[in-house]
Amino acid sequence: MKTITSRDNAQYKDLVKLAGSTQARRKAGRTLLDGVHLCQSYLQLRGLPEQCIVAEGALHNPEVMDIIGQLESQRAQVLALPDALYKAVSQVEHGVGLMFLIATPERSVTGPLSVSAVLLDNLQDPGNVGSILRSAAAAGITQVYCSAGTAFCWSPKVLRAAMGAHFVLDIVENVDLAALVSASNVMTVATSGYAKERLYDVDLSVPVAWVFGHEGQGVADDLLSITTRQVVIPHLGQIESLNVAACAAVCFFEQLRQSQPGA
Amino acid sequence: MKTITSRDNAQYKDLVKLAGSTQARRKAGRTLLDGVHLCQSYLQLRGLPEQCIVAEGALHNPEVMDIIGQLESQRAQVLALPDALYKAVSQVEHGVGLMFLIATPERSVTGPLSVSAVLLDNLQDPGNVGSILRSAAAAGITQVYCSAGTAFCWSPKVLRAAMGAHFVLDIVENVDLAALVSASNVMTVATSGYAKERLYDVDLSVPVAWVFGHEGQGVADDLLSITTRQVVIPHLGQIESLNVAACAAVCFFEQLRQSQPGA
Repeated sequence: MKTITSRDNAQYKDLVKLAGSTQARRKAGRTLLDGVHLCQSYLQLRGLPEQCIVAEGALHNPEVMDIIGQLESQRAQVLALPDALYKAVSQVEHGVGLMFLIATPERSVTGPLSVSAVLLDNLQDPGNVGSILRSAAAAGITQVYCSAGTAFCWSPKVLRAAMGAHFVLDIVENVDLAALVSASNVMTVATSGYAKERLYDVDLSVPVAWVFGHEGQGVADDLLSITTRQVVIPHLGQIESLNVAACAAVCFFEQLRQSQPGA
Repeated sequence: MKTITSRDNAQYKDLVKLAGSTQARRKAGRTLLDGVHLCQSYLQLRGLPEQCIVAEGALHNPEVMDIIGQLESQRAQVLALPDALYKAVSQVEHGVGLMFLIATPERSVTGPLSVSAVLLDNLQDPGNVGSILRSAAAAGITQVYCSAGTAFCWSPKVLRAAMGAHFVLDIVENVDLAALVSASNVMTVATSGYAKERLYDVDLSVPVAWVFGHEGQGVADDLLSITTRQVVIPHLGQIESLNVAACAAVCFFEQLRQSQPGA
């Protein structure tokens, strides 16, 4: 275990920069996973991080020590920071004091859609994006494609909300969704408050590429118009719209329900 | 329209206090609705606010002027603030500059549960609480009961996430949920990752009181054990849990699906 005690250390300054800016993370192709749950999930599902960063005050925490033990037995890099220095890197207020520095997987579109997928068109809120990734992973959907305007998937807020879903998903960002939808080999389905067809009247026991849009404006019209189906989730109350992450969960699990034996 | 220009004005100081603290809002029995959408919904569904607060810079905005016109024609109080003073009250970063001061409805339990309802046990995250209120309202469920440990429903974050759902719901806070469940006249259903019965195998075409719990720990064991049914939403992926608001949406809309003609 290495220790840095000076704020002027170049490696430390890089970490602070990475922690503070989406642009720095995108540019470096690296991000930080904050907290025991995310780090454990990463270790289990993806393997060793580039580096583990631990606050000295966390070195007595049994969960943290267990993770560090695993890392050191595999000769992974562990960096200890005095609590004051650690705090300037962590985005989590009352965090336990453990982070992984990881390379963000760089993926690109490799061919036409051929299995179930999620397409995110200009989604703004990191919490919504994270919740959708988590629901998709829980429903067994592993392909995620995001338009350029969608929140950066490897930001701390999205990572926190997704609770480790990133590590079982293939996430492709900055995708031309219209091209992807046009060339899709599977049914593409968008939800829209203006659609006539009910979600429940569509046969979802086949692969589906789900398209969700901006929190306020929904899926862009040009994209909506080229999807195979536009469906509405029927409402009963006076409130006529759902949060987009709630809407996505209803869609994914209706697909899963229809796909199960005896449905 | 009245204008306050001094930060030392007593009424202004009260507003700043109310804006900055949940405790102040609970104590005063008042809260602030921030933004055109919430204010419009309130006007439409509940009527006049105690006071409307507008930033002088927003007085050229047509939506804002339309609302102020409606208020003044009904002799409601409108208070204009210089932009700098307004900013210290608003919690919304790039808001349009319009707020309503409203009394928070004080409701209490009036009898045993007899219609569909949502019971929130110790839910921490305001975004989750708001999303659940929004989904419930969209699914036509209007009764909401929160335990003492649940996030304050009339906080700005919950209000923002619920997008006006509050105004069609009856929300009761600080409720003894165990007593409510014990005396319920309708089926009480909690979701649990440990449950054996699938959500889809329960007849939900009847009134249901849904119980959702803490983001990390779920519904407390003592409460879970007295619910009529404990159900699981079947998963397919390696990620075995859903965000609680996503879970609630799946439940509410499965109930609505089963209740619809031809289901």
